[in-house]
Amino acid sequence: MFDFIDIDWGNLLVEAGIIAAQVIGILIAFVIVRAIGKKLINRSFDRLTKKGDVTNGRALTLRALSENVFSYALIFILVATLFNIFGLSVASLIAGAGIVGLAIGFGAQGLVSDVVTGFFLLLEKQIDVNDYVTVGAIDGVVESVGLRTTQIRSFDGTLNFIPNRDITTVSNHSRGNMRALVDIGVSYDENIDEAMAVLKTVCEKVGKDNSAIVEGPDVIGVQAFGASDVTLRIIAKAKSGEQWGVERELRKSIKEALDAHDIEIPFPHQVTIHKGLGNPVQS
Amino acid sequence: MFDFIDIDWGNLLVEAGIIAAQVIGILIAFVIVRAIGKKLINRSFDRLTKKGDVTNGRALTLRALSENVFSYALIFILVATLFNIFGLSVASLIAGAGIVGLAIGFGAQGLVSDVVTGFFLLLEKQIDVNDYVTVGAIDGVVESVGLRTTQIRSFDGTLNFIPNRDITTVSNHSRGNMRALVDIGVSYDENIDEAMAVLKTVCEKVGKDNSAIVEGPDVIGVQAFGASDVTLRIIAKAKSGEQWGVERELRKSIKEALDAHDIEIPFPHQVTIHKGLGNPVQS
Amino acid sequence: MFDFIDIDWGNLLVEAGIIAAQVIGILIAFVIVRAIGKKLINRSFDRLTKKGDVTNGRALTLRALSENVFSYALIFILVATLFNIFGLSVASLIAGAGIVGLAIGFGAQGLVSDVVTGFFLLLEKQIDVNDYVTVGAIDGVVESVGLRTTQIRSFDGTLNFIPNRDITTVSNHSRGNMRALVDIGVSYDENIDEAMAVLKTVCEKVGKDNSAIVEGPDVIGVQAFGASDVTLRIIAKAKSGEQWGVERELRKSIKEALDAHDIEIPFPHQVTIHKGLGNPVQS
Amino acid sequence: MFDFIDIDWGNLLVEAGIIAAQVIGILIAFVIVRAIGKKLINRSFDRLTKKGDVTNGRALTLRALSENVFSYALIFILVATLFNIFGLSVASLIAGAGIVGLAIGFGAQGLVSDVVTGFFLLLEKQIDVNDYVTVGAIDGVVESVGLRTTQIRSFDGTLNFIPNRDITTVSNHSRGNMRALVDIGVSYDENIDEAMAVLKTVCEKVGKDNSAIVEGPDVIGVQAFGASDVTLRIIAKAKSGEQWGVERELRKSIKEALDAHDIEIPFPHQVTIHKGLGNPVQS
Amino acid sequence: MFDFIDIDWGNLLVEAGIIAAQVIGILIAFVIVRAIGKKLINRSFDRLTKKGDVTNGRALTLRALSENVFSYALIFILVATLFNIFGLSVASLIAGAGIVGLAIGFGAQGLVSDVVTGFFLLLEKQIDVNDYVTVGAIDGVVESVGLRTTQIRSFDGTLNFIPNRDITTVSNHSRGNMRALVDIGVSYDENIDEAMAVLKTVCEKVGKDNSAIVEGPDVIGVQAFGASDVTLRIIAKAKSGEQWGVERELRKSIKEALDAHDIEIPFPHQVTIHKGLGNPVQS
Amino acid sequence: MFDFIDIDWGNLLVEAGIIAAQVIGILIAFVIVRAIGKKLINRSFDRLTKKGDVTNGRALTLRALSENVFSYALIFILVATLFNIFGLSVASLIAGAGIVGLAIGFGAQGLVSDVVTGFFLLLEKQIDVNDYVTVGAIDGVVESVGLRTTQIRSFDGTLNFIPNRDITTVSNHSRGNMRALVDIGVSYDENIDEAMAVLKTVCEKVGKDNSAIVEGPDVIGVQAFGASDVTLRIIAKAKSGEQWGVERELRKSIKEALDAHDIEIPFPHQVTIHKGLGNPVQS
Amino acid sequence: MFDFIDIDWGNLLVEAGIIAAQVIGILIAFVIVRAIGKKLINRSFDRLTKKGDVTNGRALTLRALSENVFSYALIFILVATLFNIFGLSVASLIAGAGIVGLAIGFGAQGLVSDVVTGFFLLLEKQIDVNDYVTVGAIDGVVESVGLRTTQIRSFDGTLNFIPNRDITTVSNHSRGNMRALVDIGVSYDENIDEAMAVLKTVCEKVGKDNSAIVEGPDVIGVQAFGASDVTLRIIAKAKSGEQWGVERELRKSIKEALDAHDIEIPFPHQVTIHKGLGNPVQS
Repeated sequence: MFDFIDIDWGNLLVEAGIIAAQVIGILIAFVIVRAIGKKLINRSFDRLTKKGDVTNGRALTLRALSENVFSYALIFILVATLFNIFGLSVASLIAGAGIVGLAIGFGAQGLVSDVVTGFFLLLEKQIDVNDYVTVGAIDGVVESVGLRTTQIRSFDGTLNFIPNRDITTVSNHSRGNMRALVDIGVSYDENIDEAMAVLKTVCEKVGKDNSAIVEGPDVIGVQAFGASDVTLRIIAKAKSGEQWGVERELRKSIKEALDAHDIEIPFPHQVTIHKGLGNPVQS
Repeated sequence: MFDFIDIDWGNLLVEAGIIAAQVIGILIAFVIVRAIGKKLINRSFDRLTKKGDVTNGRALTLRALSENVFSYALIFILVATLFNIFGLSVASLIAGAGIVGLAIGFGAQGLVSDVVTGFFLLLEKQIDVNDYVTVGAIDGVVESVGLRTTQIRSFDGTLNFIPNRDITTVSNHSRGNMRALVDIGVSYDENIDEAMAVLKTVCEKVGKDNSAIVEGPDVIGVQAFGASDVTLRIIAKAKSGEQWGVERELRKSIKEALDAHDIEIPFPHQVTIHKGLGNPVQS
Repeated sequence: MFDFIDIDWGNLLVEAGIIAAQVIGILIAFVIVRAIGKKLINRSFDRLTKKGDVTNGRALTLRALSENVFSYALIFILVATLFNIFGLSVASLIAGAGIVGLAIGFGAQGLVSDVVTGFFLLLEKQIDVNDYVTVGAIDGVVESVGLRTTQIRSFDGTLNFIPNRDITTVSNHSRGNMRALVDIGVSYDENIDEAMAVLKTVCEKVGKDNSAIVEGPDVIGVQAFGASDVTLRIIAKAKSGEQWGVERELRKSIKEALDAHDIEIPFPHQVTIHKGLGNPVQS
Repeated sequence: MFDFIDIDWGNLLVEAGIIAAQVIGILIAFVIVRAIGKKLINRSFDRLTKKGDVTNGRALTLRALSENVFSYALIFILVATLFNIFGLSVASLIAGAGIVGLAIGFGAQGLVSDVVTGFFLLLEKQIDVNDYVTVGAIDGVVESVGLRTTQIRSFDGTLNFIPNRDITTVSNHSRGNMRALVDIGVSYDENIDEAMAVLKTVCEKVGKDNSAIVEGPDVIGVQAFGASDVTLRIIAKAKSGEQWGVERELRKSIKEALDAHDIEIPFPHQVTIHKGLGNPVQS
Repeated sequence: MFDFIDIDWGNLLVEAGIIAAQVIGILIAFVIVRAIGKKLINRSFDRLTKKGDVTNGRALTLRALSENVFSYALIFILVATLFNIFGLSVASLIAGAGIVGLAIGFGAQGLVSDVVTGFFLLLEKQIDVNDYVTVGAIDGVVESVGLRTTQIRSFDGTLNFIPNRDITTVSNHSRGNMRALVDIGVSYDENIDEAMAVLKTVCEKVGKDNSAIVEGPDVIGVQAFGASDVTLRIIAKAKSGEQWGVERELRKSIKEALDAHDIEIPFPHQVTIHKGLGNPVQS
Repeated sequence: MFDFIDIDWGNLLVEAGIIAAQVIGILIAFVIVRAIGKKLINRSFDRLTKKGDVTNGRALTLRALSENVFSYALIFILVATLFNIFGLSVASLIAGAGIVGLAIGFGAQGLVSDVVTGFFLLLEKQIDVNDYVTVGAIDGVVESVGLRTTQIRSFDGTLNFIPNRDITTVSNHSRGNMRALVDIGVSYDENIDEAMAVLKTVCEKVGKDNSAIVEGPDVIGVQAFGASDVTLRIIAKAKSGEQWGVERELRKSIKEALDAHDIEIPFPHQVTIHKGLGNPVQS
Repeated sequence: MFDFIDIDWGNLLVEAGIIAAQVIGILIAFVIVRAIGKKLINRSFDRLTKKGDVTNGRALTLRALSENVFSYALIFILVATLFNIFGLSVASLIAGAGIVGLAIGFGAQGLVSDVVTGFFLLLEKQIDVNDYVTVGAIDGVVESVGLRTTQIRSFDGTLNFIPNRDITTVSNHSRGNMRALVDIGVSYDENIDEAMAVLKTVCEKVGKDNSAIVEGPDVIGVQAFGASDVTLRIIAKAKSGEQWGVERELRKSIKEALDAHDIEIPFPHQVTIHKGLGNPVQS
């Protein structure tokens, strides 16, 4: 009896030694991998900054974030590995992964998705604070871009919190000049050439006076035959954010010019054919 | 015969010893991990509170919640581990995870998702009780933010229970001043400048008298050429929740001013061309 | 030859002993876990009842349900474990889980999802029998809340069976007073102040006479400039379920008062400009 | 050489014995589990029938179905287990589950989902043959409820085959009396009280004469201010399936009564303001 | 040295023997399972044919399909098993299943789904060639029902290829008589009883003359109060596919009868109230 | 000491031998399976071509594709297997499958799905180059059918690239004659029989003159009672692609015939009832 | 005691040797596989460039990308393999894969999906910079095609960032000539042939003068019978991007020609039947 138990105890000691060696080895590996990883992150961000692609402040934010994510992931793997070495074999961990992990994972998944999208929003400079953007059904001015949520202030004053994962196609209205567009309906009786000449004069004057206009308003021609009017279109390029003001000024000037030249913006027209007035045949 | 069975019994004893050692080791690890985890949670919330990012009450709620979630997860892992040590190897647990676990997990998944979202709703202060918010198709005043459901009272009196997982983009109408907007249609025959002057006088008066207005109502210009009228737009900033009242007052004052100055808000216009009255050619 | 086979038989016997021991150990563990689990369930429901959060009847229903679910889950795990001990290792069970289990699981999954949602519907008192609720596209009066399906009787008499899993956002119209809202269009020619005075008188009278009204009907002002009328809005708070009756009474009284004061509810207006009557130029 | 091979053959023999024992054990377990399972199914259905919850025919259908499903699942597990014992370890079965099984499983999954839903449709008596129901976009009279598909005959004669899995919310119009609803528009010039009195007389008469009406038609009041008329609403409860007939009879009687009392159902009204008739200023 | 290597070689030989035995055993099992499976398939189809549920041709198609699917699945499992025995343990197969298999599986999955649905379309006789059916957004006449796609010819001549997996709810318009429905608007001035009498006479005549009508056209009453007319509804049952012809004939006959009896189908009506004709006050 | 290490080295040698044997065995199996697979593919395509189901060119494309896919899949499995034999057991491969593989797999999945669908598009001849088809929201003429994308040229000149996986229901307008349909509204005052006779004469003439018409245009009867006209429908069968031309010619001829016979295509009608002309009571 | 421990240490040494050998073997395999992979990538791109399918610049971009992706994947597999060899068996890696990996994987998945789609966008030349394209709800001019996002500038000046994964069907309007289409409504009183002759003259002139027109504008015939006009359609092929200018010029020229020939573009027509003018019977 004694002899056999002795052997087992020895075996146990050896096993303990192996475990200790493994633990030490893992810790060393952990330290090395962490150091290498951090260096890699630092170097790639240094390169980014040197290239001038990213501003200094933005690079610092992104670098800190990258290091954090890397560290947490590494620590998690370390814990899982140590957990495993102390005889807690596959089953319990799978169970942990299978139920708790999976359940929490589903919640965390969204979180990770938020952070990854947020990372690229920052890195690719898709949106900056104070940009006027449209994201899904929300449009307004960006108030802050966080790692989990982006805050957009609608023009009616509402503050919208959008989880980054829900930000797919971003329409940024603050990246370049915006178009100002005014459609004018003139009567079918009007001479088109004359009407366009009047509009051109207005365009030239507004284009000269308004400093927000980048590319002079042009009368591009007959856009459509409406039910009661011929639609003429005027297009201009304005500084981003000034396009509505330009459109409003254009509309006011055009109204005044048309009034001055007696050109009518027609009301809806209808031809009425009368029956049964004098002789109520059918009714 | 006797000899061999003897060895096996010894082996069994040794195995029992190993198991006992494992159990003890796991319990110790459990206690240590739990202590460390709780400390980490406490410290991070302390930091949060010190920074002043979160109010005391909110921090307490979140800390209690975090500790609970952490404890339950740990207990689950402990049970799974012990389960495993007592010879109930992979299979039964996988089966448990595979069928029961998976089935329950699907239910619980939603639950976890609710709790995670609820956690961030509180942490990021996206909604507070008494905020007027829009969440999906529901809008109203928040009555309570729970970990599983948020209750929103619609303006018609309905109480809406929304599972937190269904709360993605939150539009909070109580974070800053709101816009009041009134569109006025004036006749094409009217002099636009004169009409705008009248409206400006009204705006100044209302802006002075109404304390709910933060940024004086402004007549921003010709917003559109309507079918029968020229649309002028008036915009103001009002205290959150007062915007509708401001709009109603603006409308009443404008109506009175336009009546006083004999400026018409035109009905829909139509030009009728008559055929066949005297000479019913076609009919 | 004989010698070696002898050893194997002994080994088999020992194995049988181990198995027997395992079975007994598992059964004991099963009994203990079940007892503890039941106690936990009972205690937590006792606490719930004491706090007065839940009515006695409801607590009994929920406790019975919780115990059942717990028992079935435990029995399933027990069977799976025993299955495993008798040499039916991972493979067959995974296969069972992988194909049959997965297939049935998908069906059962919905079932579990139903039960979990039903549990929370009851626990959080989101809907009670006889509440008037809106759930998705269905609205009506709740007839019964089951663990799998909830039955809602529409106002047209239809009985709707809704699987609980399809119940997400619940809009409960029976939790507090409901709003009664009446919009009245008065002519642009009318004096707004006078019209509002008449409406206020009606509101006061109806508010006094109708006991279903909780918060007196108020004329809140000019809600909109319509195409042919100025819209005035009246709002009241009525007891839940009485709001439609209140609205109908308000409408009838308002109609009578406006008739008495000769204030017109205008028909759609249109301005017609005639062409070609005497001189059919264009036609 | 001979000696060692001898031992292996012995080992093989022993292994064969173990396998044989396992097979027998499994078969015995299979028989026992099957017997117990069948008994459980029978007993639960007996209880159901005794309680009177389910008709005899329905119970028989469900019992047969339950036994079949149970048997097939058991046989599958048996085969998988035997497969495993004969040295075909995890891999091949996982491969079978992983590719073929998964592929077929996806098809079968829908099937299982159909059967599970069909089971509950029958068990919970959500739809019976000849009920008039709405399921998703389909509405009509149920012709048969199968385990895979339900057949609904639309009123236009179309026969719809709906896979049971697509049946979620069931709106059953044959479970209780249905509402008959008629909206009548009367002129703004009419005296509301007088018109309601006329309608009440009609309602009383129709309510007395028509045996399909369960709850007498009531004039509930002024439902809305229309553009050209005041809408009065009449509501009645009719036997399920008779509501349309009741509505048609009500409409006919009301038309006759209004004609008799000279109360007009008004055409759309419009106020026309004329410009430019005598003096075509603008045109 | 020699001695030990000798043992290993022996061991190898023994292993080879075991493997050979396994291969043979598996092949035998394969042959047996295949024979049994084929017999089961044949017998169940024999039973189906005897019951007369399925035509002979259809049964042959289905039987051939079932055997093919069964054979391929079996061969796949056989290959996987043999693969495994020759020392290619779990990993490589899982990898194969995990990446290639999964990727291909996703493609094949749709295929299997197509075949399973096609199988049931045929088995349950949901659609036959030349049936007029509606499937999702497509409606037309079935040209062929294949195992992967169903071809439907729209009435405009388009040939639609629909993958069977996209066929869920099938609306078959060729399973029984179809309803013909004609709504007639008569003037509010008309006597309803008289108009219905005229329509009844038409219905009787058409019902007698038209052999496609199964259930005589009936005037079921006042369906609605329109804006300008009282809507009377006529319903008939026609042979499937003849309903449109019946409706067209009914419409023609009704038009002639109404003309003969001087009953007007009214144009839209409008009441115009004139302002500002003699005294252009407002304009 | 020496002795034991010696044994291990021997063991290692043996293991190396086993591995070598395995590698050779696998390579042989690989070659055999590849040969068999290629033969199977060739033979099945030979059969397809012989049956005349597929053109030669198409069969060659499909055969090459099938062989490629088969080869790549086989090579992948081979690599995975060899990887495994060299001591890189489950874990690393699962990790590779779990993370990289899964990630890439998701991208590749779409690719496989594209190729599988493209394969069937070609095999089942659902679309050919120059067919006019509708796929989802896109319709136009097919320019090319590739394995990953199909290119469709819209009638406005746009070239659409559609991933094959997004091609589900294909509506092919070039498989048989197409319907030409013209609806004509004639006045309620018109004699229907006379109008239909005129239309029939036109139809006969157009049907004779226009070679694109396959089945003579027929006046099928009174399709609807419109608000202001009785709608008569004319239907013809035209060669695919010529239906619009036929419709245009029919419309022109009908217009001329109706003009010749003085049959009016009526404008919208309205009955106006005048109030307040002579006695402006209400206004 | 000593003896046994000795053996274990020896065993450990041997194990270390095996591990070292494995590591070296793996590194060698890694180097070889990498070299082969790079060569394969290079050769296939060489072939692509030689065929002239891809421009040189594009091929370089794609080659660099392919090599990067290949290298990173290989490094990952290497790390995972080494990780595994140092005794970190299945569990920890599965845990890493199961939780962290899965979570990160979900984020990375989108990334991979972006890159794969971007790769094919470039390879298949679906979009080029400066193409005018429609992708989902966005249309505009492509500013850049990246591996993660594509930037499209809308005509109103907005810059849209679209993740490549959201780019499925691409409608490219810059691949060939575009259609210019003008619909002209002429009066029912007009002679169709004469009107078409006038339009043809205009078309010929515009077609000759405008160099942007590729295929002369044609009057294709009577497109529709409108409510008040007969619609004639004119179609032309213009250089991509010039179609709107061509349409505008066509419209202007047509308007002038119709004015010159006194052909009216009719306003909406309505036939009014008067009642109650002289004898206000009903009103």
